[in-house]
Amino acid sequence: MTTNRPTGAEPLPVTGAWRPGDPAGRRQFVTMAERRPLALEGGGTLGPITIAYETWGTLASDRSNAVLICHAWTGDSHVSGPAGVGHPTPGWWEGMVGPGLAIDTDRHFVVCANVLGGCQGSTGPASIDPATGAPYGSRFPVVTIRDMVRTHAVLADELGIDTWLSVVGGSMGGMQVLEWAVTFPDRVRSIVPIASCAQATAQQIAWGAVGRRALKLDPRWRGGDYYDAAPGDGPHDGLSTARMLAQITFRSDDVFTDRFGREMADRLPENQPEKFALWQRFEVERYLDYHGEKLVRRFDANSYLLIGKAMDLHDVGRDRGGLEAALARVRCPVLSIGIRSDLLYPKYQQEEIAALVNRQGGVATYVEVDSPHGHDGFLINIDQVGNAITPFLEKVANE
Amino acid sequence: MTTNRPTGAEPLPVTGAWRPGDPAGRRQFVTMAERRPLALEGGGTLGPITIAYETWGTLASDRSNAVLICHAWTGDSHVSGPAGVGHPTPGWWEGMVGPGLAIDTDRHFVVCANVLGGCQGSTGPASIDPATGAPYGSRFPVVTIRDMVRTHAVLADELGIDTWLSVVGGSMGGMQVLEWAVTFPDRVRSIVPIASCAQATAQQIAWGAVGRRALKLDPRWRGGDYYDAAPGDGPHDGLSTARMLAQITFRSDDVFTDRFGREMADRLPENQPEKFALWQRFEVERYLDYHGEKLVRRFDANSYLLIGKAMDLHDVGRDRGGLEAALARVRCPVLSIGIRSDLLYPKYQQEEIAALVNRQGGVATYVEVDSPHGHDGFLINIDQVGNAITPFLEKVANE
Repeated sequence: MTTNRPTGAEPLPVTGAWRPGDPAGRRQFVTMAERRPLALEGGGTLGPITIAYETWGTLASDRSNAVLICHAWTGDSHVSGPAGVGHPTPGWWEGMVGPGLAIDTDRHFVVCANVLGGCQGSTGPASIDPATGAPYGSRFPVVTIRDMVRTHAVLADELGIDTWLSVVGGSMGGMQVLEWAVTFPDRVRSIVPIASCAQATAQQIAWGAVGRRALKLDPRWRGGDYYDAAPGDGPHDGLSTARMLAQITFRSDDVFTDRFGREMADRLPENQPEKFALWQRFEVERYLDYHGEKLVRRFDANSYLLIGKAMDLHDVGRDRGGLEAALARVRCPVLSIGIRSDLLYPKYQQEEIAALVNRQGGVATYVEVDSPHGHDGFLINIDQVGNAITPFLEKVANE
Repeated sequence: MTTNRPTGAEPLPVTGAWRPGDPAGRRQFVTMAERRPLALEGGGTLGPITIAYETWGTLASDRSNAVLICHAWTGDSHVSGPAGVGHPTPGWWEGMVGPGLAIDTDRHFVVCANVLGGCQGSTGPASIDPATGAPYGSRFPVVTIRDMVRTHAVLADELGIDTWLSVVGGSMGGMQVLEWAVTFPDRVRSIVPIASCAQATAQQIAWGAVGRRALKLDPRWRGGDYYDAAPGDGPHDGLSTARMLAQITFRSDDVFTDRFGREMADRLPENQPEKFALWQRFEVERYLDYHGEKLVRRFDANSYLLIGKAMDLHDVGRDRGGLEAALARVRCPVLSIGIRSDLLYPKYQQEEIAALVNRQGGVATYVEVDSPHGHDGFLINIDQVGNAITPFLEKVANE
């Protein structure tokens, strides 16, 4: 097996739990050996590292049918399937991945892994630091999208996958997709970045930074070392507020108006003379609360901060001579999918990815999803996204 | 003097401090008599109420040249002039108001008053509640844009201004402008709402609500009763964070990219092996910090919450049979100014104001400011806004 690793980076030996024949869609783990910690992009090392992942379908004997799906900020390895042990929520891309679907598990061997820094099985701030026997908390290092991708490349080695038929992902998933193609151009036969960007803009950094600042205001965050808190005594209000902010940027003005308008959610007591109260919620606030609280039940606040920072730091051009030089490394077909109404990753960013790749002699196609739903359109408008992916994968598989 | 007050609302007697001949651009106060408290739109009463205001120019003997300027969220009466006692910041609309400018103080008598609920001289949460002798704090009632406008109508009475030549304002100022025209159609000869809306949308409510939620996370907010805190021990972090969020919505993606890009503001110590740190700031974060801290030095957190809530509650159609019925009351010429790149009050809302007024038989013109600066364009692109206002006021004055 030959792999294309960044210059100077040594292979990371692994001790894996997965073997061919293991059940599909059940979470598996691979642990990278402690004696070879990961050299982080930002300096320093981290180890041992465990990566949680799931697979669907069967790897072909020539190993040509493997598709990697990269998840977004608060996603995890559970692309498809019901909630269960290790999967607090149902699959986040139901309808996209499965038998006969756009990413067809009858034909493809589909892999999705939780990112480094996450909290659904992969090593993150809530993991035990072997140096202290306690959770890392505030001592967990800043990781980058490149670090995440490098750990998943080790997983690919472990699975015997030298080359992915395609690497596909939306939002932060799309960042990983681009890093795959730039870091490991020989290991990808195609990529599909969706509703993402080649580098985070100042406005994207601003949204993220203010959300983190809100989380930090919660005294129960305790500088990141809150893991000994009693149940329910963690930084839930802070995480919830940060998520509420993000949730606005995930959707759109039009859809908020259609769904919520100016409806009031909270009724004041009948015996109260006042018609309004400062904390009385409009329906849209109840919706945001719902999303905030839903996240709190399944996600770690430190992982939220850390992964948010990784997105701000995302820049495929860093230390590579800039965006154009970096994207010149992309040698495979690129399907770049933008969403018309995306507020967070405006469609011009996906257009730019395609334009830059083409300008460097690559082969990129831009497809626009005509969705009113904003950024989350990649999770909602499954038909349109799938209709773009299906023929693209078909063509790549036959090349 | 005849005035046109909403049915059932009694005149509010006043004891005013201002008299003709008082110096221009110096803050004055009018206090409404305690025996007639203001009946709030949301129920309950409030009094006594003091309103701080400033004037520029000379009221004509026929009182036909008075222009009211309505300020935005964290604005105050100080439209123009240097910082000084009672004016912690220079005028917020310098270049727009003055001799020979678009709102020409050689020809017009210009008035701007701090809003009810504010903290620059008008009664607000930091004012002393006569019932307790302590600041209102959490006991200050929710006020609406209509309440603000009604107190300014009393000020107009006190100044002897039966009819404004024009009422002009951007953002929350534009909300007051519309309320003036709908509540007191006989008291306005023209209106100029800028970068504003006839009713707050779900997305606008969402931005505001999340900012307030962030402020509330600050333990030093103490439920709103923090006025006995030691200097520097108020809810500064919370207010600053809320303001940072708002500041993103006041500007634009393009301008953030041009100004800040991905520049890093904080350098890590040379002797530190790590290249990145979780709280290391990009330049855009330093900019947001700057704006947050700047506001903290001059603004009260409770006023910020209260006025934000008033904007969420803004709906000229409430209890008036809806938007169309309300805007049918507008009998004066309307100059509705939108900003091309406005993220917070998208230009379609200003187009809608003009369209609705025209559909009801009114006379409205929509003018678009071709600015890349986003919502704050009404404060930045003075030339374009002024070029629209000058001929409009000229025409109204000659009618």
